Amino acid sequence: MQHFTRADIDNLHKYERIQLINSCPGFKSANLIGTISANGNENCAIFSSVIHMGSNPPMIGYLTRPARVERNTFTNIKETGFYTINAITKSMIEAAHQSSAKYPADVSEFEAVGLKSQYRDCCPAPFVAESPISMALKLVESHHIQANDTILIVGEITDLFINEDILRDDKSLNLQEADIVTIGGVDAYHSAELIQRFEHATL
Amino acid sequence: MQHFTRADIDNLHKYERIQLINSCPGFKSANLIGTISANGNENCAIFSSVIHMGSNPPMIGYLTRPARVERNTFTNIKETGFYTINAITKSMIEAAHQSSAKYPADVSEFEAVGLKSQYRDCCPAPFVAESPISMALKLVESHHIQANDTILIVGEITDLFINEDILRDDKSLNLQEADIVTIGGVDAYHSAELIQRFEHATL
Repeated sequence: MQHFTRADIDNLHKYERIQLINSCPGFKSANLIGTISANGNENCAIFSSVIHMGSNPPMIGYLTRPARVERNTFTNIKETGFYTINAITKSMIEAAHQSSAKYPADVSEFEAVGLKSQYRDCCPAPFVAESPISMALKLVESHHIQANDTILIVGEITDLFINEDILRDDKSLNLQEADIVTIGGVDAYHSAELIQRFEHATL
Repeated sequence: MQHFTRADIDNLHKYERIQLINSCPGFKSANLIGTISANGNENCAIFSSVIHMGSNPPMIGYLTRPARVERNTFTNIKETGFYTINAITKSMIEAAHQSSAKYPADVSEFEAVGLKSQYRDCCPAPFVAESPISMALKLVESHHIQANDTILIVGEITDLFINEDILRDDKSLNLQEADIVTIGGVDAYHSAELIQRFEHATL
């Protein structure tokens, strides 16, 4: 085993440290967050920090970069109170990855990267039409992480749109069948294959 | 597309709602958190909520269940200030999943599920010897999520232990080569296969 002390980590080149530390937690979720500003500029950006926070009420969180950097997504969410989270499939990875480029606020990433925005009555923010799993959320809480000036955004699901083909009888989703991808490190998109499902563990 | 309104979600059977909402964010990381209590009881538990929070300083977060439920892991972290996060590989999934059973505080899940605890000078908490990626962390912050009484635990990496075979030249980790698994929903363990790595996206 190679041992990296904290000094070793701090002494890495910036891009090596980013690669190493981003790889350590294992595979990450891959989602596109859709928003619209108060004056009607739509935005779509990839996030690998979306996490399940609870089922009752249905809550989803995501972490965003330092508050001092302009982040169109969170700015729009604060303006309207609503956003969408949309799954990324294998055929979407090139467009999804490109959405991480720093487009100006008045450019629609949907148009710029070639994804289709879709509006539904339940939510003012745009959905990604290509996604087999889309959630509409309303902002509930945000928490400022003091140690590195990041923000955890907490939302409650108001509506869900699921491709029927991937909905199992027990209401779990067949993510493999949907071609949902997962991200390793900062840039490595993976497909996934089911090994095994387990019963609830008991003593 | 099947549309679930919030009322539809709330009216699902509890276990169906858990399956559905846990599946929506896509693939989750799979890690074992190792801790020890002030009086020496070691603990090991699986978490699918571990996320990267930043690289400089190197920070990792995880979400834990409602504060009112006894959680040995967080209790131990508060007592000692330290914990380890360890990757789960394909050959470890049965033992890792079994660690989610509600063992009494004085039972070592390492012994109960058949994983090997390993102690290193840099950290009082036990590592999982079988893991190809292990992090030692110190507790930095915790944030109480009011909307559902969960807690985000934020830690800083003090030491890293990486199997040399999976460390690429750019310091990213080859998670596929390491057989690291990813979790869909609450119970579906998947292996992953690299599709493509991308350059940093620019305009």
